[in-house]
Amino acid sequence: MQIPRMPAGFDAAKLGEVLDGRWADVRVQVRETLRDTELPPGDGLDVDSHRKLILDQLHRLAASGIPRLGFPGEYGGKGDTGGSVISLEMLAGNLSLMVKGGVQWGLFGGAVVALGTERHHSRYLEPIMNMELPGCFAMTETGHGSDVQSLRTTATYDPDSEEFVVHSPHESARKDYIGNAARDGRMAVVFAQLHTAGQDHGVHALMVPIRDENGHPLPGVHISDCGHKAGLNGVDNGRILFDRVRVPREALLNRYGDVEPDGTYRSPIEGRNKRFFTMLGTLIRGRISVAGTAGSATKLALEIALRYGDTRRQFENPGTGDETPVLDYLGHQRKLLPALATTFALHFAQEELVSTLHDLHNAEEHDERAQRELESRAAGIKAVTTWHASRTIQTCREACGGAGYLSENQLPQLKADTDVFTTFEGDNTVLLQLVAKGLLTYYRDQFDDLGTLGLARYVADQFVGTVIERTAARRLVQRLVDAAPGRDDEDEIFDRGWQLRLFEDREKHVLDALARRLRRATGGDADPFEVFNNAQDHVLRAARVHVDRVVLEAFVAGIERCADPDMASVLERLCDLYVLSNIEEDRGWFLEHERIGTRRSKAVTEAVNTLCQQIRPHAVSLVEAFGIPRQWLTAPIATGAESARQEAQRAHDRPRD
Amino acid sequence: MQIPRMPAGFDAAKLGEVLDGRWADVRVQVRETLRDTELPPGDGLDVDSHRKLILDQLHRLAASGIPRLGFPGEYGGKGDTGGSVISLEMLAGNLSLMVKGGVQWGLFGGAVVALGTERHHSRYLEPIMNMELPGCFAMTETGHGSDVQSLRTTATYDPDSEEFVVHSPHESARKDYIGNAARDGRMAVVFAQLHTAGQDHGVHALMVPIRDENGHPLPGVHISDCGHKAGLNGVDNGRILFDRVRVPREALLNRYGDVEPDGTYRSPIEGRNKRFFTMLGTLIRGRISVAGTAGSATKLALEIALRYGDTRRQFENPGTGDETPVLDYLGHQRKLLPALATTFALHFAQEELVSTLHDLHNAEEHDERAQRELESRAAGIKAVTTWHASRTIQTCREACGGAGYLSENQLPQLKADTDVFTTFEGDNTVLLQLVAKGLLTYYRDQFDDLGTLGLARYVADQFVGTVIERTAARRLVQRLVDAAPGRDDEDEIFDRGWQLRLFEDREKHVLDALARRLRRATGGDADPFEVFNNAQDHVLRAARVHVDRVVLEAFVAGIERCADPDMASVLERLCDLYVLSNIEEDRGWFLEHERIGTRRSKAVTEAVNTLCQQIRPHAVSLVEAFGIPRQWLTAPIATGAESARQEAQRAHDRPRD
Repeated sequence: MQIPRMPAGFDAAKLGEVLDGRWADVRVQVRETLRDTELPPGDGLDVDSHRKLILDQLHRLAASGIPRLGFPGEYGGKGDTGGSVISLEMLAGNLSLMVKGGVQWGLFGGAVVALGTERHHSRYLEPIMNMELPGCFAMTETGHGSDVQSLRTTATYDPDSEEFVVHSPHESARKDYIGNAARDGRMAVVFAQLHTAGQDHGVHALMVPIRDENGHPLPGVHISDCGHKAGLNGVDNGRILFDRVRVPREALLNRYGDVEPDGTYRSPIEGRNKRFFTMLGTLIRGRISVAGTAGSATKLALEIALRYGDTRRQFENPGTGDETPVLDYLGHQRKLLPALATTFALHFAQEELVSTLHDLHNAEEHDERAQRELESRAAGIKAVTTWHASRTIQTCREACGGAGYLSENQLPQLKADTDVFTTFEGDNTVLLQLVAKGLLTYYRDQFDDLGTLGLARYVADQFVGTVIERTAARRLVQRLVDAAPGRDDEDEIFDRGWQLRLFEDREKHVLDALARRLRRATGGDADPFEVFNNAQDHVLRAARVHVDRVVLEAFVAGIERCADPDMASVLERLCDLYVLSNIEEDRGWFLEHERIGTRRSKAVTEAVNTLCQQIRPHAVSLVEAFGIPRQWLTAPIATGAESARQEAQRAHDRPRD
Repeated sequence: MQIPRMPAGFDAAKLGEVLDGRWADVRVQVRETLRDTELPPGDGLDVDSHRKLILDQLHRLAASGIPRLGFPGEYGGKGDTGGSVISLEMLAGNLSLMVKGGVQWGLFGGAVVALGTERHHSRYLEPIMNMELPGCFAMTETGHGSDVQSLRTTATYDPDSEEFVVHSPHESARKDYIGNAARDGRMAVVFAQLHTAGQDHGVHALMVPIRDENGHPLPGVHISDCGHKAGLNGVDNGRILFDRVRVPREALLNRYGDVEPDGTYRSPIEGRNKRFFTMLGTLIRGRISVAGTAGSATKLALEIALRYGDTRRQFENPGTGDETPVLDYLGHQRKLLPALATTFALHFAQEELVSTLHDLHNAEEHDERAQRELESRAAGIKAVTTWHASRTIQTCREACGGAGYLSENQLPQLKADTDVFTTFEGDNTVLLQLVAKGLLTYYRDQFDDLGTLGLARYVADQFVGTVIERTAARRLVQRLVDAAPGRDDEDEIFDRGWQLRLFEDREKHVLDALARRLRRATGGDADPFEVFNNAQDHVLRAARVHVDRVVLEAFVAGIERCADPDMASVLERLCDLYVLSNIEEDRGWFLEHERIGTRRSKAVTEAVNTLCQQIRPHAVSLVEAFGIPRQWLTAPIATGAESARQEAQRAHDRPRD
């Protein structure tokens, strides 16, 4: 087998420029700010001190001006949506700060921007940006997290006083896991079922004060503390129960639905479902930020594990008499290097996602279809990236042995802090199901009754509409696919066109089969819930392979943008490792469906091994190129302690060397 | 496809008796003790208070007499080796206590029993059992963890004073991660290279006092603190550096090697390697305890997630108007139920392992071969069980969403505490490599030079010697395999004989191919390190599939022991789910090697889905049957809070129901 080779050496700084991408200026700016501002993550502090520390840091971050990036220019912001996501993900070494900042500026501030109108913007945005008004995003309830449409908090309009009455009728309706609620929040954007004139208009959001200026809860607002969590203990998550709390009519964030003084309801969007999904869609930035931050945290964890693996030695090589660096072991490489390649792939997918968000946000005309596509993409990439983070950070911990278990080496905190990413801002399983339902709408002709499968609302909204639509570098991908060799050449597993075609083909086949299966099963008097549920593993898989294809195309597009041929060829090898380790992991399916034969399947495993060995000498440079701010790299095992020990031992073992 | 059915209902208490097994009396006794003794795990305490709490609890546990189980009868113990392992694993709800107890009685006490002689036993065992003498097991060093043979601490005999001088020549030689060292230990069993009369005799252990009676470090003993860890913060792990510390000649634990007053070295075992492995082999109980505890912690995590999944509802079923319990979703079942089935399988494998340990320990004659086999089995099952624990507890956390991230719901602590199990008491990857090397000795005729592959020492010791030797229920397994149907019947995937044959065949094929590959590669002037390293993924896989077969045979044997046909048929379905989900996960290999065809491969996936749905109604009863002590189940979501909320919401939604 002819395996393409890595360049003998390359300039990590140059690769860093390629990776910095479209928001290189923001990355450089944040790196500089972080160089001058100590923001220790507060590991080991008790909960109270940790929360206090992070609140102080939030004020300092506000003073730096960075949080203004994402707010509209006319209210003192910078109007740089993409930059705001990038700047947040760069806080990966202090995830309590990132999440608390995300709550304040992304979720709370973002909801006021997206769902409010001028009267809210002019009043609240400046104090939100400068942290005079710490706030909460009170959506999730104890009884309803994934199913936001079924929230139980009510906001009932009282025309006599021209007020809304916000109420939690029982414990399930209590707002739960709300960041900034337990300690610091003064106001909350509260999501509630809007009732007026005897009618229920579905979920809307209102500005509800929750604490007075001394920090005491207001009358009727019962706040409790979620207490200690697995991680993110610098964030004060709490629970809020409303006992008939009155707010003025103007508290309603009224961009997508308003109530007139007499109680008449008006909305620019017809249809409860469409209104709900439109409102939710404007809040997509939070989900994209979580994906970005999960990616950054993964890079930091990999940097620690790879630096350690590069210097840590264990077991003598009888041939040389030297102890072997653990990263020289194939088993160790296989733990870390395919994960590194996937991290590169997801980096480019994330960059593309942020770009699309930014461009849609700044577009002259609202493109409904593109917006729905962005939401689907964001859901899928968030799920895949956060699972990748959980798995990879866990692997990095194990790859560092006992040292990886010590808090001083950062991996425990990274693992604990990122762990919730797979279930907050959308539970990953629920998100993948959303993605699949969107893809299934392509097959709408094949179904008699879409409603029963829960697909109707996607079709009505023309959610996605076409299957296997190229997402990036469309022409390039087509050219590569067209030029791909036939089935007989073993080397073709390194052919990008062959790889792209294989991913496309997998997606199409899984989706086609799913649609056929659902159609068959819906005949007769089958219970539609059961039909869909019996195929849930298939549904989730369809979404997963779709995302894998989207990610690969983004990687290919990223390489195409890279002008320097040396850098491009480094990225090509990482892309090979990403693709081939993905195929290897899924070779059960490829073989089952006769997409590859047994000989080629074995060749893929061999190729993954060879690529690992090729990339191994460059592993540390590659991970450095991500440019994680140096403030975040504090683990002694990754910053010299281990290599100093190895030196000392060697000096002792061979004093006359 | 004809799928065998679960019984409509069964008696969970009866199943509990089956699972309690050979040490049912110990389990009952420990459950009773735990009912009367509050031992809260100390979540949320600061490190100092946590350590103090756990030390107090250790004294109370000592007072209960339970730790005496594993010590010899003639010194006040109960001589029940198996019972001591079982009793330790039952502390799964307070893992700091389990680990600190494991250090004190299992590792420290166990080393004194196994490596010491009468003079040590009569002096130290009583104060070890009653906690008057808290101690450490000082083996691992900063520079050498997995490679114990290369430890750098030295113990040099000085015939003039008849003392040993214990010394750490540099920082890599510092003892590290040592439990009981940072705060409480008074004495340590220190592993060091023994030098006498100018010769190095390899690793031996000595009793070295480290603190005086006021708790101050003794002269020359430099102790530091490992600080905060991911979990197990009730255990005071520390580092010890010895600066020419002198201990009397009698401090040497001299069962396998002694130094006479004039400095002459004597050992009953010839050969440095054999002596080293014999000494290490006597310490196997710690590894077996870790596997048992990982299993218990997994059961507790599954009980929390399954109880929550059974009551938690999300999304309305349009057909019924009710919200759906999340465990009714196939995707949720697939997360938890194959993991539950695997937990049953590993339960029986662990029971068998403990039984073998116990019987060998009590055997009249020492059976060297059986001992080596036990060590291999222990290594493999420890690796597989602790990885299963890490993965399953992580899955349980995610399956509980935000609630699973709150410390009050126990999963964060369970995850953090068990996380180190995959790398302590033997790094899992290193352990699997050991298992594989043992298996490869069967092929010794095929190699010219075993030494270069690191196999020589196993062959010399007749480590394992035969491949695919049945490990449990030998005759039954043979009968089932012989009666297995041919290849054409689709239902045969439920035939136990077919399943057993498939697992055997996989193991044999992977091993045969590995041996061939290594033999081919060792020809000529190939670098033997490279040869072995290039095949490391294959090596690890060989061990893994070997362990899978051993586990399946243990499950089959456990079912055979079960006299009640109803209970047996419940276990049969769990065994099916264990086997078929294992095959599904590995179907890439089975297809690649044409062990199953594409049609059968798809049938396996379908069967896993059906089994999940069959088992789902019984999930809570099944996990309850493990009999985890009720003291350990405190998560509000698993003890009524969630069902109370569901009731309240329903009462509010339909007041007139």
